[in-house]
Amino acid sequence: MANKIVLLGAGNVATHLARAFSGAGHEIALWNRSEAALKSIVAELGCPCTTDMDALPKDADVYIISVKDDAVDSVAEQLAHTLGKTKATVAHTAGSLPKSLLDKHFENAGVIYPMQTFSREKALDYKEIPFFIEEEDDVLKRLALTVSEHVFTLTSEQRKVLHLASVFACNFANHCYTIAEDVLRQIDIPFATLLPLIKETTQKVSVLSPREAQTGPAVREDDTVLGRQIHLLDSRPDLRDIYILMSNSIISYKLGVKS
Amino acid sequence: MANKIVLLGAGNVATHLARAFSGAGHEIALWNRSEAALKSIVAELGCPCTTDMDALPKDADVYIISVKDDAVDSVAEQLAHTLGKTKATVAHTAGSLPKSLLDKHFENAGVIYPMQTFSREKALDYKEIPFFIEEEDDVLKRLALTVSEHVFTLTSEQRKVLHLASVFACNFANHCYTIAEDVLRQIDIPFATLLPLIKETTQKVSVLSPREAQTGPAVREDDTVLGRQIHLLDSRPDLRDIYILMSNSIISYKLGVKS
Repeated sequence: MANKIVLLGAGNVATHLARAFSGAGHEIALWNRSEAALKSIVAELGCPCTTDMDALPKDADVYIISVKDDAVDSVAEQLAHTLGKTKATVAHTAGSLPKSLLDKHFENAGVIYPMQTFSREKALDYKEIPFFIEEEDDVLKRLALTVSEHVFTLTSEQRKVLHLASVFACNFANHCYTIAEDVLRQIDIPFATLLPLIKETTQKVSVLSPREAQTGPAVREDDTVLGRQIHLLDSRPDLRDIYILMSNSIISYKLGVKS
Repeated sequence: MANKIVLLGAGNVATHLARAFSGAGHEIALWNRSEAALKSIVAELGCPCTTDMDALPKDADVYIISVKDDAVDSVAEQLAHTLGKTKATVAHTAGSLPKSLLDKHFENAGVIYPMQTFSREKALDYKEIPFFIEEEDDVLKRLALTVSEHVFTLTSEQRKVLHLASVFACNFANHCYTIAEDVLRQIDIPFATLLPLIKETTQKVSVLSPREAQTGPAVREDDTVLGRQIHLLDSRPDLRDIYILMSNSIISYKLGVKS
């Protein structure tokens, strides 16, 4: 069943949700504080959009606030003022923010958190993305199921932990790639040379646990190589600190001190 | 042209090289200090193998020492003693060890370093694996080209830097997955839930540089989320230290302080 959905925001997450919901046949409208970011979405999807919250449809089934965490509260307050008393579901998309932030403004508040790393330009298969829902009824769950095959229910406390795990698995793993690229610059080897290694590293964790899949000098406790690599980073104390902390952590996990 | 190759060692790298060279039609023989590790390779490939170095063929074209870094020197010494003066190419497979380690024992020494994360059980497409070669002639280069489409020449100094980069891109990225799995255990969410996120994170770096691909609270400098996530790790100072160091490093790279 098609819903009428209003998206508030025009960042990476909002853009992809607009694409996903539009692709699933829902009627969507967009609001954003500034006009610039809206233009490319309108050009792509042709949906109505505005920078004037009062011009938004008042009869949407679901309003989704997808702005920077710091701005969710003020956008929610403005939306509550605009809509007045409403039976519509109003949700945010933030992994780290509680549902209670919206409960104070709306009768039917919720959270719809798509766990993925969204870059505006890169197309995604939305069916694969896990959506984590928090709500009193099942409006958001049914909506998410029109887009994804992987929809779960979590409390705000559980979602915080999930979001933390995703920062390690995505942002920090990606930062390891950034550092590798930086290190390779010294010997003029392109980052792309590492792609088969990176691909295999991630394929392994779909068949082995990451602990079982670990290789390299730290898990072998090969002190000679560890010492030599630390020495290579003498001129980069920032990277040397990361190298030492990560290697010690790998050894601790291996010895079962942690977890 | 088929070569006669002797592999010394029976660890993950030696096992995969045995498979790769055997699959490319070369004649191989294996030596390992202990018999246990040899058995599964023999069962799989049916090649001659021994724990007695004196029983190895003396007329092989290439001898490849693929043992723990700490053991390369002593195995090389023992092999030099066994072979006497030889024109055969003798190479090791270690990213971090110089070619000079073998130069003192052999007239034609070299290095053949396959950059990949090798787990014994997991099949690999050897064509994709980059091989980094160091030698005076082109014996190892021609051998590697029978297995892989990506063969490069590097000096020992360059290879050390490459190996360091691979530790960040593979071992440290994988350790971020281990930590994510550990964090998820608190809320009984299986690690597999993160796989679409992990897959997308790695796919992004084949089209964007990892710096451009970065997302999350650190690169957004979202101090509210950063503070909340650090607080979530109060009971795990080991992970809190990693969280803070990685987040600060992401911000430094964004601001262009590094690189």
